[in-house]
Amino acid sequence: MNKFINDAAQDENELIQGMAKAYPKHLRKLDCGNVLVRAKKKQGKVALISGGGSGHEPAHGGYVGQGMLDAAVAGAVFTSPTPDQVYEGIKEIATDVGVLMIVKNYTGDVMNFEMAAEMAAMEDIRVEEVIACDDVAVKDSLYTVGRRGVAGTVFVHKIAGALAEEGASLDEVKAVAQKVIDNVRTMGAAIAPCTVPAAGKPGFVLGEDEMEVGIGIHGEPGTHREPLKSANEVAELLLERILADLDYAGSEVAVLINGSGGTPLMELYLIYNHVADVLAEKGIQVYRTLVGEYMTSIEMQGFSVSILRLDDEMKRLLDAPADTPAWKELG
Amino acid sequence: MNKFINDAAQDENELIQGMAKAYPKHLRKLDCGNVLVRAKKKQGKVALISGGGSGHEPAHGGYVGQGMLDAAVAGAVFTSPTPDQVYEGIKEIATDVGVLMIVKNYTGDVMNFEMAAEMAAMEDIRVEEVIACDDVAVKDSLYTVGRRGVAGTVFVHKIAGALAEEGASLDEVKAVAQKVIDNVRTMGAAIAPCTVPAAGKPGFVLGEDEMEVGIGIHGEPGTHREPLKSANEVAELLLERILADLDYAGSEVAVLINGSGGTPLMELYLIYNHVADVLAEKGIQVYRTLVGEYMTSIEMQGFSVSILRLDDEMKRLLDAPADTPAWKELG
Repeated sequence: MNKFINDAAQDENELIQGMAKAYPKHLRKLDCGNVLVRAKKKQGKVALISGGGSGHEPAHGGYVGQGMLDAAVAGAVFTSPTPDQVYEGIKEIATDVGVLMIVKNYTGDVMNFEMAAEMAAMEDIRVEEVIACDDVAVKDSLYTVGRRGVAGTVFVHKIAGALAEEGASLDEVKAVAQKVIDNVRTMGAAIAPCTVPAAGKPGFVLGEDEMEVGIGIHGEPGTHREPLKSANEVAELLLERILADLDYAGSEVAVLINGSGGTPLMELYLIYNHVADVLAEKGIQVYRTLVGEYMTSIEMQGFSVSILRLDDEMKRLLDAPADTPAWKELG
Repeated sequence: MNKFINDAAQDENELIQGMAKAYPKHLRKLDCGNVLVRAKKKQGKVALISGGGSGHEPAHGGYVGQGMLDAAVAGAVFTSPTPDQVYEGIKEIATDVGVLMIVKNYTGDVMNFEMAAEMAAMEDIRVEEVIACDDVAVKDSLYTVGRRGVAGTVFVHKIAGALAEEGASLDEVKAVAQKVIDNVRTMGAAIAPCTVPAAGKPGFVLGEDEMEVGIGIHGEPGTHREPLKSANEVAELLLERILADLDYAGSEVAVLINGSGGTPLMELYLIYNHVADVLAEKGIQVYRTLVGEYMTSIEMQGFSVSILRLDDEMKRLLDAPADTPAWKELG
């Protein structure tokens, strides 16, 4: 297995410790496990918690900080965090105005976050939840009832996080998080798999010059396989599905070209070059663009396109200041 | 060739166009070629220009903006930009206080940047130069006289860029750039090669579980090959060479764990976890940490460690505001 690791069973522990050591002014790791919280707790605001399996770095610890999350809970690689972990995170960040859980739609994540919320409710912590489900590729599968939550979730962290930072109520923060979820769509493709270190072999196998269209962020099957096409054709394939799923006509949008971990930035930029042209042709105005690794799948070679339909509130909150390890202010 | 590209010969054109489209408020592409400059020229300051082959994204276009570079010139993949390109960049950004070229030490880059400077001198543009040479692995090779300039160059962009933004003179900006070069050391390793699209095959071949120690950012040979060790052992191997090359005892340092493009962030964070411990043991105090892809080698699986010995001036300039697509404010 061609990886820079030590003991596969310790990967998630070591990476979370490394993240905490890299950003000591911003992050603090709880003693009880792989939960990263803001170094300085902010009282009186709605506290946001998210998370999922490890292997999606910089998600989710990279989004903890002013203007985004208050806590990120990391399970083992591609494995839901336990209810206990989530509960410890909730307890740590809870304020008197409540906690919002931002959960990506995978059966295990949803179940474990909801169990944690029940545990917190028994201690009179008010917890609400939104479930991100931006992937237009696959609906109902072995892994998920409904659609999967993928890279578009980063927009939920940013926009709901900004509103929480302004001092909005739990109902208001939940509403804007849901608005982002209602307005963002994502689809991805991959040309090479990733290997969960503890498994020691790739999660799937693709032929030379073959791609998986609509792949999930854990390497779950997409809609189909077909011969690899040009970058522009692949981008068009994904855009077609996304734009058919929501009416973007005449809208301003934010675009995220997300790298899966093994795909070089060179390719992400040349993909965006064409995405920008296609959107311009269709009269869809790009307000802001993100290109980079925001929600990875270890070293998978692939990318996804997310498109968020914006209104004035979302534009304002997208542009609000954030101070976290992984959010870039630009665009 | 498993890549999301269109026409290999157009890669660098498309990626630079994509970068310019992604950040229109920050970047402008010159009509004459792959030169990215600040969207709004700032007069009265020393103008900084850097560049090199494409394939190192986000370098160098990602470092153009307030507080860093004024122009980035991109050659074909892993190929020096031409003197004409550099000259066009210099002409565009030149101000009455002069231009500083930050060149990584490769024979072709140095030659072409210096020819461009001569062309500019004929038009009475004052141009000075510093040559980054932070790689401790290899001295004098087919590619370079002296040491190679690699990821540590990003610190030169940041610190010299910040001083230029404050209105310092060309001599002062050159002096601080040279001070960074004198105080930064880097070394890397790789476990899988990258493929220059136009070549269509990997630049080198490694056996299963074999690594190249001291590899260059274009995949040039390092010091030797050996069986892949644990991440901690590889980190120690690199640190040993770096720390033997400069006296860091009792210093405050900035650390960059730079991903080569195909190595997942998970691995970079777990590598930093150990680097932090080793430096702490040695009494070297980490002032600031950067972990991520700052100077890549297309999809090479590898990483480098850069350590910059800081003084008060460099600390201040490292922390100064910057507004570019790829520089993260954190640490």
